[in-house]
Amino acid sequence: MSHVVVDQEEVPYVKTKAKLEDAILQGRIKQAARSCKELNASVHADGLYYLNSSRGVLYQTFCDMTTAGGGWTLVASVHENNMYGKCTLGDRWSNQQGSDPNRPDGEGTWANTVTFGTAESSTSDDYKNPGYYDIAAQDVSVWHVPNNIDLEQWSATSILRYHTENHFLNLYGGNLFYLFKKFPVRFGLGACITDNGPAIPIVYDTGNVDYNKNLYEISTPGFIAFRVFNTERAAMALCSGVKPTGCHIEHFCIGGGGHFPEAIPRQCGDFTRWSASKEITEAAVLLFYR
Amino acid sequence: MSHVVVDQEEVPYVKTKAKLEDAILQGRIKQAARSCKELNASVHADGLYYLNSSRGVLYQTFCDMTTAGGGWTLVASVHENNMYGKCTLGDRWSNQQGSDPNRPDGEGTWANTVTFGTAESSTSDDYKNPGYYDIAAQDVSVWHVPNNIDLEQWSATSILRYHTENHFLNLYGGNLFYLFKKFPVRFGLGACITDNGPAIPIVYDTGNVDYNKNLYEISTPGFIAFRVFNTERAAMALCSGVKPTGCHIEHFCIGGGGHFPEAIPRQCGDFTRWSASKEITEAAVLLFYR
Amino acid sequence: MSHVVVDQEEVPYVKTKAKLEDAILQGRIKQAARSCKELNASVHADGLYYLNSSRGVLYQTFCDMTTAGGGWTLVASVHENNMYGKCTLGDRWSNQQGSDPNRPDGEGTWANTVTFGTAESSTSDDYKNPGYYDIAAQDVSVWHVPNNIDLEQWSATSILRYHTENHFLNLYGGNLFYLFKKFPVRFGLGACITDNGPAIPIVYDTGNVDYNKNLYEISTPGFIAFRVFNTERAAMALCSGVKPTGCHIEHFCIGGGGHFPEAIPRQCGDFTRWSASKEITEAAVLLFYR
Repeated sequence: MSHVVVDQEEVPYVKTKAKLEDAILQGRIKQAARSCKELNASVHADGLYYLNSSRGVLYQTFCDMTTAGGGWTLVASVHENNMYGKCTLGDRWSNQQGSDPNRPDGEGTWANTVTFGTAESSTSDDYKNPGYYDIAAQDVSVWHVPNNIDLEQWSATSILRYHTENHFLNLYGGNLFYLFKKFPVRFGLGACITDNGPAIPIVYDTGNVDYNKNLYEISTPGFIAFRVFNTERAAMALCSGVKPTGCHIEHFCIGGGGHFPEAIPRQCGDFTRWSASKEITEAAVLLFYR
Repeated sequence: MSHVVVDQEEVPYVKTKAKLEDAILQGRIKQAARSCKELNASVHADGLYYLNSSRGVLYQTFCDMTTAGGGWTLVASVHENNMYGKCTLGDRWSNQQGSDPNRPDGEGTWANTVTFGTAESSTSDDYKNPGYYDIAAQDVSVWHVPNNIDLEQWSATSILRYHTENHFLNLYGGNLFYLFKKFPVRFGLGACITDNGPAIPIVYDTGNVDYNKNLYEISTPGFIAFRVFNTERAAMALCSGVKPTGCHIEHFCIGGGGHFPEAIPRQCGDFTRWSASKEITEAAVLLFYR
Repeated sequence: MSHVVVDQEEVPYVKTKAKLEDAILQGRIKQAARSCKELNASVHADGLYYLNSSRGVLYQTFCDMTTAGGGWTLVASVHENNMYGKCTLGDRWSNQQGSDPNRPDGEGTWANTVTFGTAESSTSDDYKNPGYYDIAAQDVSVWHVPNNIDLEQWSATSILRYHTENHFLNLYGGNLFYLFKKFPVRFGLGACITDNGPAIPIVYDTGNVDYNKNLYEISTPGFIAFRVFNTERAAMALCSGVKPTGCHIEHFCIGGGGHFPEAIPRQCGDFTRWSASKEITEAAVLLFYR
């Protein structure tokens, strides 16, 4: 059960029956509920909840208490605010200062502790909370929710929802922050196919393998793939629903490092350049942990 | 009276005398004070207060407990950080990526749930809190406060303050978020005069109809007008103190969609291009609900 | 000792033994711990703590409870996200819209109440909390921490740490916000050397006067200097570890106003242009008060 934990060593005068008010007076709160999974025993409704990181940072996010047993914590969303802008303002998951070989990691968002946005507006803007790097998780869940949809309708309006079940994050440090420390989303670090990161099989919750079948000549459906390179050695963070089998991954992967050498550039940005339907490019990608 | 409400259905084990600490442990707080108006019975001093949205988002803002009976909640401020920049960084109420017909809504701020800034710095930067889209209000109040003024001096230093009294928001969904859903601030959606949104009569609290009389050839004083178009079908969000009677509204209206076709452009931005005094252009526009 | 203070005058019905929940219900919290120094009597571990500003703004930051008696509050960090960008996005401590004589103060960050970032990510992004303008302090402490280091390792990995001991802030309003009100970081306001602000002697905690000895032809080590001008009358906010004795200060000072007239420009930005080692330019500058 969730309960307040006040570090007794650091705060000697707090009695065993420490009250929250004492803890706040003290300036430090250590509350047990570190993820929606921990809340799962006592809470059963989807919605916004307060969580507390291991360092004592209190934040609020959306919990999915329904899908496959519930306990999923929303930790991030990737929202494209301008399909015509190529690495411009708002491309926090790639580069906001143009395609630039001098910034091979771009914003570095996939592997740092910078946070932004709110859960409530995560279909209208990028979002990243402390859970992204703090929660010790085993699996991910991904929702593609049309832009500007209210949170009460996220689940019902999603055009694609899926999750992993094989506890793959156990192998990569417990969350995407540590996974991307191992597999940096950095231009030039590797070659396509041979140096790609892990590709994990998925279970569909809404939609199925048909949603992007026009891409099957260059990918295999039924996966989520991490840190992949294209022909020009540009790095992308995440391919949603498919595992690349070729090099033209910019057509269906999102996020990225800071440089896309392809001429002009036409590819740089949070949503690099989807050949998928407008339905997909105008939906935010919400990332959950459990 | 304000009191903590813990949803009994969702949280079965919480007893009737639920304490705040239980509610926080639970990860969810539902507190009754949703606006400064609700606080009005027990609180009488202007200042910063914590409010709680209907979705349980806790936030802090400034309450005006004085004007015309008090109970006004600060929900937003429009601050121009660069009169020389035309739709550049900081133009969150119009477009931060240049005048662009591909982004007819610009940032979309008037009708989405993205929030930014703090109450305390709302005369030094743009501000928008959850109250903007959450509070069920009837009237608006507007303060023009010189840039960088401390909140204790806002009221005394304002160059213009007024409010509506006819409960017009009852007709438009209860706040500006819903009003602008009905009247999108989008380039090209309509023509000047004929397609403008509502213009509501105002009562002056500081200043009077004379403050922008140099504009009276193209407008009528004593109103606040919403979603108006200019000659080139560019949309602006709000005309403060006047109702346009002509098409050159860019001279006295603020906020806007993402495109201003007029050549160069000279008009794009949060403060499009005021012909009013420098006193007006160097003051933030604070928006309150009641 | 820290305790909740509910203003009795404003909130008449709250009893003497006011509980935190009442205070929150009331919408206003006035908590005594306004700085890490005030927590110092009961708390002895470095880490993240909640503080409360004089206006009742609750925020969280890092307390250094170790150095020279402890009680140091982290109030800001200056982080260079792009040494190749000259006054581009992320240069919040100078100008994010290019070198521009029309914006002589640039963002105005050194002397306004705008806040951004989080304590936890202050080696990966800029940071400024309400303590910067709220705390009544006497001295400053500065840490140069390599980018992207976790807070548990900040102290051990710092390449330079020092503090002042002469209570100089007593003369300048009690913090840097007020110091920079007196000495605006504004292009063109003065000439190099003659119009510089105060230079305060420092005590080294990590490192010593040798760290930037390659600069000693144009500066004196063992100081922190504030608001200095270069040859072209560009203003910089802070010279870390040295006092300028010449005019080419852009080589070792940080922050700044909005315009650097030197051709091209090569100098504009949070880290103007350090001739110091890459070690220095790739470290965030953390500012503490006590």
